[in-house]
Amino acid sequence: MKKKKIYEGKILGLSVYDGKIEGRKVKREVIEHRGAAAMLAFDEDKKVILVKQHRFPHGYVLEIPAGTLEKKEEPIKCAFRELEEETGYRAKKMTPLITYYPSIGYNSEIIHCFVASGLKKIADLKLDEDEILSVEKVDMKKLLNMIKSGKIQDSKTICAVLTYAAKKKLY
Amino acid sequence: MKKKKIYEGKILGLSVYDGKIEGRKVKREVIEHRGAAAMLAFDEDKKVILVKQHRFPHGYVLEIPAGTLEKKEEPIKCAFRELEEETGYRAKKMTPLITYYPSIGYNSEIIHCFVASGLKKIADLKLDEDEILSVEKVDMKKLLNMIKSGKIQDSKTICAVLTYAAKKKLY
Repeated sequence: MKKKKIYEGKILGLSVYDGKIEGRKVKREVIEHRGAAAMLAFDEDKKVILVKQHRFPHGYVLEIPAGTLEKKEEPIKCAFRELEEETGYRAKKMTPLITYYPSIGYNSEIIHCFVASGLKKIADLKLDEDEILSVEKVDMKKLLNMIKSGKIQDSKTICAVLTYAAKKKLY
Repeated sequence: MKKKKIYEGKILGLSVYDGKIEGRKVKREVIEHRGAAAMLAFDEDKKVILVKQHRFPHGYVLEIPAGTLEKKEEPIKCAFRELEEETGYRAKKMTPLITYYPSIGYNSEIIHCFVASGLKKIADLKLDEDEILSVEKVDMKKLLNMIKSGKIQDSKTICAVLTYAAKKKLY
């Protein structure tokens, strides 16, 4: 496949590939992304810690905390770091939950979801300059209902919460 | 927000926005995508109809059937059309299941998932010139285990199957 680089930016790049797959002529537009970690984190009262974040052009969106991997960063290190930066909580343990591709047809991004446990509030938020967010806590049953009723439409929150519920047989 | 168009392609576009949100200077890289429909389809024996599709650069991936909306196409029309094209099955009914953003932070794509029922095999596959795929059937219990064990890593398959399982209390 012949690669033509179109764009290299802050959080993503774009390349177009031309060539043959199994004898057929194909063109593939591919978003290049370093990948991310997302954390299903439970506080002292077993509530799930969410962030309400400004997502252009959607407005404010309620999601589990998450962040993009730094260059060569291990997903689990990113998970510990981002949880602390976005929520002020430090976790004792990060347990792998599910790993998935949000758009497997055209985007290299892979999202590593963890269950964060043993949480302790250690600091105020350390946000990136252009991050706009606040913390909210919701109990698991309510969160499941928000997904089933369509109030939450963010893939990492849906995948992490429903996988956790399926593994723990929460229904 | 000031918009600069970087790329307009076959399945996606890319724009970069500069401006202020709530008084803060921000830059947002946004993938523009028309959206898609994905179908959790059950055959006469209640097995789920999947497609094994070549996804560059991943190789072959097992997924629920899906496709990109044509310009101004209703998601439900796209669901009927794509199911027939990719699997050769015509559905009697498409029931909305869940709608989600695969990458809410930087991609406008929204995926409309439906449950397809009343299926009848009516034709052979009608694939786009650059589509490379075959049909497989898997029972729901096995599919749930494939998700929980990490064998399936495609967001639309995970979101549709786990939402269906949660709504039907399948665990």
